[in-house]
Amino acid sequence: MTGPSDVTRTLSGFVCGARWEQLPDTVRHEGKRSILNFIATALAGCREDAIEHTLASLMMFSKGGQATVIGRAERVDALSASFLNAASGNVFDFDDTHLRTVIHPTAPVAPALFALAEMRPVSGRNLLLAFALGVEIECRLGNAISPEHYARGWHITSTCGTLGAAAASGKLLSLDTERMVWAIGAAATQTGGLVECLGTATKSLSVGNAARNGLWSALLAERGFSGPPAPIEGRQGYLSALAPSTIDWPALTSGLGETWELARNTYKPYPGGIVVHPVIDAALALRREPGFALEAIERIVVRGHPLLAARADRPNVTTGREAQVSVQHSVAVALLFGEASLAQYTDACVRDPAVLALRAKVHVERDEAIDVAAAALHMVTKDGASRIINVPAARGSLARPLTDREIEDKLRALAASWCAAHNVQPLIDAVWTLDRVDDASLPIRLAAPAQA
Amino acid sequence: MTGPSDVTRTLSGFVCGARWEQLPDTVRHEGKRSILNFIATALAGCREDAIEHTLASLMMFSKGGQATVIGRAERVDALSASFLNAASGNVFDFDDTHLRTVIHPTAPVAPALFALAEMRPVSGRNLLLAFALGVEIECRLGNAISPEHYARGWHITSTCGTLGAAAASGKLLSLDTERMVWAIGAAATQTGGLVECLGTATKSLSVGNAARNGLWSALLAERGFSGPPAPIEGRQGYLSALAPSTIDWPALTSGLGETWELARNTYKPYPGGIVVHPVIDAALALRREPGFALEAIERIVVRGHPLLAARADRPNVTTGREAQVSVQHSVAVALLFGEASLAQYTDACVRDPAVLALRAKVHVERDEAIDVAAAALHMVTKDGASRIINVPAARGSLARPLTDREIEDKLRALAASWCAAHNVQPLIDAVWTLDRVDDASLPIRLAAPAQA
Repeated sequence: MTGPSDVTRTLSGFVCGARWEQLPDTVRHEGKRSILNFIATALAGCREDAIEHTLASLMMFSKGGQATVIGRAERVDALSASFLNAASGNVFDFDDTHLRTVIHPTAPVAPALFALAEMRPVSGRNLLLAFALGVEIECRLGNAISPEHYARGWHITSTCGTLGAAAASGKLLSLDTERMVWAIGAAATQTGGLVECLGTATKSLSVGNAARNGLWSALLAERGFSGPPAPIEGRQGYLSALAPSTIDWPALTSGLGETWELARNTYKPYPGGIVVHPVIDAALALRREPGFALEAIERIVVRGHPLLAARADRPNVTTGREAQVSVQHSVAVALLFGEASLAQYTDACVRDPAVLALRAKVHVERDEAIDVAAAALHMVTKDGASRIINVPAARGSLARPLTDREIEDKLRALAASWCAAHNVQPLIDAVWTLDRVDDASLPIRLAAPAQA
Repeated sequence: MTGPSDVTRTLSGFVCGARWEQLPDTVRHEGKRSILNFIATALAGCREDAIEHTLASLMMFSKGGQATVIGRAERVDALSASFLNAASGNVFDFDDTHLRTVIHPTAPVAPALFALAEMRPVSGRNLLLAFALGVEIECRLGNAISPEHYARGWHITSTCGTLGAAAASGKLLSLDTERMVWAIGAAATQTGGLVECLGTATKSLSVGNAARNGLWSALLAERGFSGPPAPIEGRQGYLSALAPSTIDWPALTSGLGETWELARNTYKPYPGGIVVHPVIDAALALRREPGFALEAIERIVVRGHPLLAARADRPNVTTGREAQVSVQHSVAVALLFGEASLAQYTDACVRDPAVLALRAKVHVERDEAIDVAAAALHMVTKDGASRIINVPAARGSLARPLTDREIEDKLRALAASWCAAHNVQPLIDAVWTLDRVDDASLPIRLAAPAQA
């Protein structure tokens, strides 16, 4: 492995020197959209088993009182809050996606910043700037080492997110370049996370740790806790240990400040795996067609990019978690219920006899000519009629991004799913006005239902 | 990568089923020696900068009160105590060494167990058994992936230690095999640590995390926090992500319960890098020779295994930490002071003009014929006389292990170096009698000086 010898210092200098004025309006706005979408999915996830267990366990060790846990009445220390909010935001994989790397960019970074904003006075602009910079470091690392890094077993959201969280937290703490390098080193030696754990509670540990350890790394660096001068590119550093044989070195530092990875963020309308999204769009479109009748369906063939078949041709899933990456289940619920939200990916829904009957009629075929963001659905009816729905780009993709209003509605629906009494309008307003307030902690404080 | 598909389950079943009666007397005794040596080095390290910073930082977030920090009056939560004691024990690299892997076995494992023993009633025998089992898992993993794993940049004490700490903690919690597999999965996805960080404060983070995350993994598994069925050997699991192309599969599971890696543990008489130890022995032997006179020395040539030159031919070191891996500095202080302990590896000692003058006369030559545990020192005097000292095996190596009394004396000296008032005899007695007491927390509680 050979490459430039000043990657960490270059990235650190960029983060330390960046100013709000340099951040394009579109990127500022994308930051708010990312944060809104993150809070939405954390409100959905905050009562999932993995969160209940880690919260109950951390409460035994935590000083408590410092920071908000999204959607919960409990208040814990800032490190534990970072952990829990990151885990909640990501637990259903319903959070955002940086498509080139399949990193979920916000979960590791935003919780560290909001926890800091509850510890110290932080302005909304400074938080948004730090957030964009953290996502930049995180996704550039991912760009440089994808796709082999993930293929080997590294949960890339965690392994890149820890450094992003450290850089963002360090920016909020106004670290100088030397200390920023130390913060990144502390993060690099505290990162990990295995793809093997996906589908189990342990998945949430590395995502939570990314936020927690990133924040802690910056707090330690602020105290003068020293690290190596080149933790990313050093001979026995991050890239040597975690990266495959081929590293895209220019992806790390070329065009810093000219392009923004945050501008490439996307948000999911459905909690399923992103490859299944165009299929769900097609099924929902079919259901809306005049004269559509469930009873008439003889057979459905879904054609898609080979990745669709490889990841999601799963006719016989048994749990809601597995169903999130099943074409058969997703098509069945979309046609039956006209929806593919969290309620359609529960264990109970997977056992529903109507779902079982319908999914048995769904088949997947691979087609090299179809783009990974597209899909085609071919229905044949019992009387021999046939209908084809083509979806060239899924809702939520870069070509068809969710509107601001759709992200708001996602938050409203997810909050209402377990706490109808939580009035989320002030929270939504607080995110859209974040660049105009002195106290950046307002959104996170409004993300816990009133204690009454 | 292909190998057996039941590595994690086999290891877990072994740990869960093991009983005190199966543990050979020699292994039981080696466990006590390891713990005594660990407490000794933690007493030395507990006021080092890396510990002061992490302790002060963790106190901001910790519930406090639960568990002892070795050598300190502060009491913190059990997770933070595990972190801090592991970091203290290892901070000077003066702790134990499993020579085949260069893992420091005790620092990640023992602190997790002692913290548990302060949370719940734990017998001395159960703690010693769990300790031997944790070291077994840790070092077998290391045997399977050495030496390439470390060469790529992984700090092997941390990356193997997390799983060892989880297995040991899980044993103390009496987890069943399924939950032990989950605990190991939680640990596998929470491990990390980079060689690049050695020589800086950040080195201590991954070692501390190994103990902390290992303990937390077992506590979560006890609650039913689920993990994957094959976290070590699964397609995108621990070995795929962290191990090199070549894995010694039999090293993982062959002869479980017949051989014990703990029996191969060694303890350092000097805080320096282990390759320098035979050189220090030779210099101390030279100094004891009748008629030895510093002023007469013209030139000293140290001959050793190529690894000695590669690692420790460092004529111009500037810090105490660097001096720990310098042949030149080590020979100079041994000859000048008749000692090579912590006081001889301070920044001040490195700047001592007498040391500087003497180290300039010391040269290193590589000799393929000399074993890595051996060294030869050739002194030429100003009048042309010459003297050769051969050390076939260093003090502290498996061939010349430290005696029990020497380990006790190491603890006495290190405790007295900063707290002469700390009466350590009860602590020493508590370790030697650990297999006969109901409360395994006694040694750790006696490892903090009386609050008066």
